[in-house]
Amino acid sequence: MSSDNLTGAENQQETESSILGLDPRWVVGFVDGEGCFCVSVHHNPLCARRTGGWQLHPVFQVSQHQRHRAVLEELSSFFACGRVRPKGPKSSVLAFAVDSLQALEGLILPFFEQYPLVVKQRDFRLFAEIVRSMRRKEHLQRAGFERLLTLAYAMNADGKQRARTLEEVLGGSSETTRQASPVSDGASKI
Amino acid sequence: MSSDNLTGAENQQETESSILGLDPRWVVGFVDGEGCFCVSVHHNPLCARRTGGWQLHPVFQVSQHQRHRAVLEELSSFFACGRVRPKGPKSSVLAFAVDSLQALEGLILPFFEQYPLVVKQRDFRLFAEIVRSMRRKEHLQRAGFERLLTLAYAMNADGKQRARTLEEVLGGSSETTRQASPVSDGASKI
Repeated sequence: MSSDNLTGAENQQETESSILGLDPRWVVGFVDGEGCFCVSVHHNPLCARRTGGWQLHPVFQVSQHQRHRAVLEELSSFFACGRVRPKGPKSSVLAFAVDSLQALEGLILPFFEQYPLVVKQRDFRLFAEIVRSMRRKEHLQRAGFERLLTLAYAMNADGKQRARTLEEVLGGSSETTRQASPVSDGASKI
Repeated sequence: MSSDNLTGAENQQETESSILGLDPRWVVGFVDGEGCFCVSVHHNPLCARRTGGWQLHPVFQVSQHQRHRAVLEELSSFFACGRVRPKGPKSSVLAFAVDSLQALEGLILPFFEQYPLVVKQRDFRLFAEIVRSMRRKEHLQRAGFERLLTLAYAMNADGKQRARTLEEVLGGSSETTRQASPVSDGASKI
């Protein structure tokens, strides 16, 4: 083997572009490594008063440096949904992302139920419950919203990276003073 | 599904501990996501003068937060080598790591030749060449060391994250003044 055969971005692109089809078990392993089942919480004044103006936004995504764009495009073809977009305005990291509730329910959830995750199985189960409940519009009622929000805060290491506590969000969706819940130390970056 | 069934570290551990055997294609996908084929460069005054006191240290590793220790232990069983260790003295991240040249050559390389990587295939091929050359002790001669060092600097985005340039290391292994090579902008963190 000569190093001449292995240097340069062309080789990288050629290797990844020549993938004819991804093995589903490889996809599960890759998602267990680089994927994320996330439910972000946004404040939107246009949202119903009964949720305190908060909305839930479930996203399945897989991130890679832009030099590996080909594999993200391949994942988009594999799942027959989603799109590849930069993680931020000047970011060199791209994400294959699916945030359509219909695509999540119809394409993403059934796949990972047929091919179970290993590391991210618990987050996936919570994510699946949130997506299906939202498809039934349960999040539009206060009780449903609060239940799904609590599930979202139980995801990804019990929401430890979130910027807002569960109580801060719930404070805007309910007039009752709440006891600290088991996931109340969560803080959301999203 | 009730959220009571899904919260708590016990569930996480139970899920991962109940793995009876990892699918090899899942392992390839997971390594394509979370694995690293690295060749670090260390200065060791005890090393032969002909390499300028530098030594190459190939390591295959897969990292995870400590709450996913079970999957790293499972990988160690799967590959029948390596060990799980903290990434640093106070780090909450663990790594399953294999740095025995014998284990790398006999167990790790054949597996990834049977089950090819997708994203990290190019780095793996360079890594394999370095490991096999070191097993033949080519790195103990100056010409061999310089060839393998150049291959190492062509790995992982052409060594852009390395703290030292290729020339800085080569300067200690050769008396000749060198032209900048195609990978001379590399800088090593390791």
